[in-house]
Amino acid sequence: MTAATGTIVAAGITPRAAGFRMPAEWEPHAGCWMAWPERPDTWRLGAKPAQAAFARLANAIARYEPVTMLVSASQWGNAVRHLDPAVRVVEMTTNDAWLRDTGTTFLIDEQGCLGGVDWQFNGWGGLSDGLYFPWDADDAVAAKMCDLERARRFRAPLVTEGGAIHVDGQGTILTTEACLINRNRNPDMTRADVETALCDYLGAEHVIWLADGVPDDITGGHVDNLACFVAPGVVLLAWCDDPADPHYAVSREAEARLLAARDAAGRHLRVERIPMPTPMFLTEEEASGLDRTNPRLSSSAGDRLAASYVNFLIVNDAVIAPAFGVPTDCVAEAILTRLFPAHAIVMLPSREILLGGGNIHCVTQQQPWPRGA
Amino acid sequence: MTAATGTIVAAGITPRAAGFRMPAEWEPHAGCWMAWPERPDTWRLGAKPAQAAFARLANAIARYEPVTMLVSASQWGNAVRHLDPAVRVVEMTTNDAWLRDTGTTFLIDEQGCLGGVDWQFNGWGGLSDGLYFPWDADDAVAAKMCDLERARRFRAPLVTEGGAIHVDGQGTILTTEACLINRNRNPDMTRADVETALCDYLGAEHVIWLADGVPDDITGGHVDNLACFVAPGVVLLAWCDDPADPHYAVSREAEARLLAARDAAGRHLRVERIPMPTPMFLTEEEASGLDRTNPRLSSSAGDRLAASYVNFLIVNDAVIAPAFGVPTDCVAEAILTRLFPAHAIVMLPSREILLGGGNIHCVTQQQPWPRGA
Repeated sequence: MTAATGTIVAAGITPRAAGFRMPAEWEPHAGCWMAWPERPDTWRLGAKPAQAAFARLANAIARYEPVTMLVSASQWGNAVRHLDPAVRVVEMTTNDAWLRDTGTTFLIDEQGCLGGVDWQFNGWGGLSDGLYFPWDADDAVAAKMCDLERARRFRAPLVTEGGAIHVDGQGTILTTEACLINRNRNPDMTRADVETALCDYLGAEHVIWLADGVPDDITGGHVDNLACFVAPGVVLLAWCDDPADPHYAVSREAEARLLAARDAAGRHLRVERIPMPTPMFLTEEEASGLDRTNPRLSSSAGDRLAASYVNFLIVNDAVIAPAFGVPTDCVAEAILTRLFPAHAIVMLPSREILLGGGNIHCVTQQQPWPRGA
Repeated sequence: MTAATGTIVAAGITPRAAGFRMPAEWEPHAGCWMAWPERPDTWRLGAKPAQAAFARLANAIARYEPVTMLVSASQWGNAVRHLDPAVRVVEMTTNDAWLRDTGTTFLIDEQGCLGGVDWQFNGWGGLSDGLYFPWDADDAVAAKMCDLERARRFRAPLVTEGGAIHVDGQGTILTTEACLINRNRNPDMTRADVETALCDYLGAEHVIWLADGVPDDITGGHVDNLACFVAPGVVLLAWCDDPADPHYAVSREAEARLLAARDAAGRHLRVERIPMPTPMFLTEEEASGLDRTNPRLSSSAGDRLAASYVNFLIVNDAVIAPAFGVPTDCVAEAILTRLFPAHAIVMLPSREILLGGGNIHCVTQQQPWPRGA
């Protein structure tokens, strides 16, 4: 017989104090969560091309681990028809489909219990810099996910998004000043306050700060489009060798900081480079399919897309990575194959996701597999 | 590592053929499901008194087993604040809160796998006799529940509601002709067709037919307000000794049929009687709190309420039974105490649920505990 479990909002106690940590993405997953794209100011042509792309992504991940797709009441029946029967389709209201940013950041403790961080979400920068208003449904997603999984929920005392942080699962956090030290998120917190909160809520001990994200990233500069851990002590960095490209300086600055840093275990980091994709731009046809009701989301033809191969997801036994149909795709695939020799490398065409402003990592959220379960 | 599981809609194969059965309500539960009341034509005063009553019920059940409360997006935050933190609150659109009728009827197989029947639902009688239109969200509830639990879903080929059937878990189904043999549900099915479908989808072999439900039951005569199995071979029947009461004849007819019947194991049934509550009527004040927008739900002051002590729920280690604040409550409690000597008997004031047209059993749906899990 089970005891009643349910969500507990731990008032005062932090995940770290309660023995929780965020595992690395390469640790075993119980599954992966996504949300269904709908809003016609983010996704062109009534989100129909994006829905097809999200369905292909969900169905691809479902070959490796269970997938839960969160869908609004009105789109539920349509989503069910697009998705493999193995995908669990769950009704949930959202403001948009960036589950990396709005979903809970799942945690585990040493007993294998599941926890979840409920970050405060303000639409990537609130009324001044955010991408849309309202964002109340998005801010409730993490709590609803915790309840669905009966995970212990920890509401965090700071505004951030899951895409703004990466961890090595061994005490180290990777993030950017552009997002975390920004008055549009946490105007009253110092850098030290932010470090304390991140470590307390991710069960970590050390923060490595990069400066900016990749250029043209509408999130303000999420680390998950710039760099990620691929193993303890190893960081993969989106690299650019064209001095005329604004990412040239960004990638050099990031590499310098990474090489100067040590992780929580005291290790120097090895930096692996992966090229930025051949530059890509929004076409006239693509721009014309957007509802132009929101000035913050009104991309124009010719705008550069914030494409990056770093925006992949590690799942059980595979890496699901973006492909853009450009020559750099093969280079990226070769690098990922070398870095993940025990994983299948699945390159998935993802331009329709990119058009919305993110990519595979931005629209997914892994749930760790509890040890011993 | 888990394999991707998810919902499978078994086309063609029936639960019985696949090795599934509906367990008896007294078999171990993994938990219980409810839905949050909202519609102001069913529930007086904007459903606020009913919400308080549903919250008390959910919180009472949560002392014995996990509870999931399904809540619309707009009421989610309010429900969370009413409910014990142990109650899992899950967003789901419904047309009303009768989860016994709209929820999946959960099944298990011998390996401990979870299945679920997705009955066709038409609002208790369709456009001619049903209680409201539309009912599309209610008809989708069972599929969504199956997906949430990754249960194997079986869409049934007949229109019915969970409250129209009881089982002993050993091959016997108890139901009423008033609901199941009614052209407002399945005009093209014979009695034999209905028996076959019920047995196929509940994993049973034998149907015992009662005639009518209790008087004034707006469902058309659900068995779960009239009689239920309390053990293999033992049926509890709502009884009436007042010849002036229309239930006098109904209860005698039901007892005669039960005493003439045999169950799937060939046993004669023992019939236990439990008195109908002291007659109760809708007050002027109660009637005045209803939105009178729906002629089928427009109860009037003085209407008799379809109260019955049989409308209880068996949970792990307890029976949660309705109390009405009338003298018969003590008699009912004593009978339940005798029939369930190993269970706590929790008598819960439930007039606000009764005002909507049902009671504790009507608004709950148990989920069996898989054997060996």
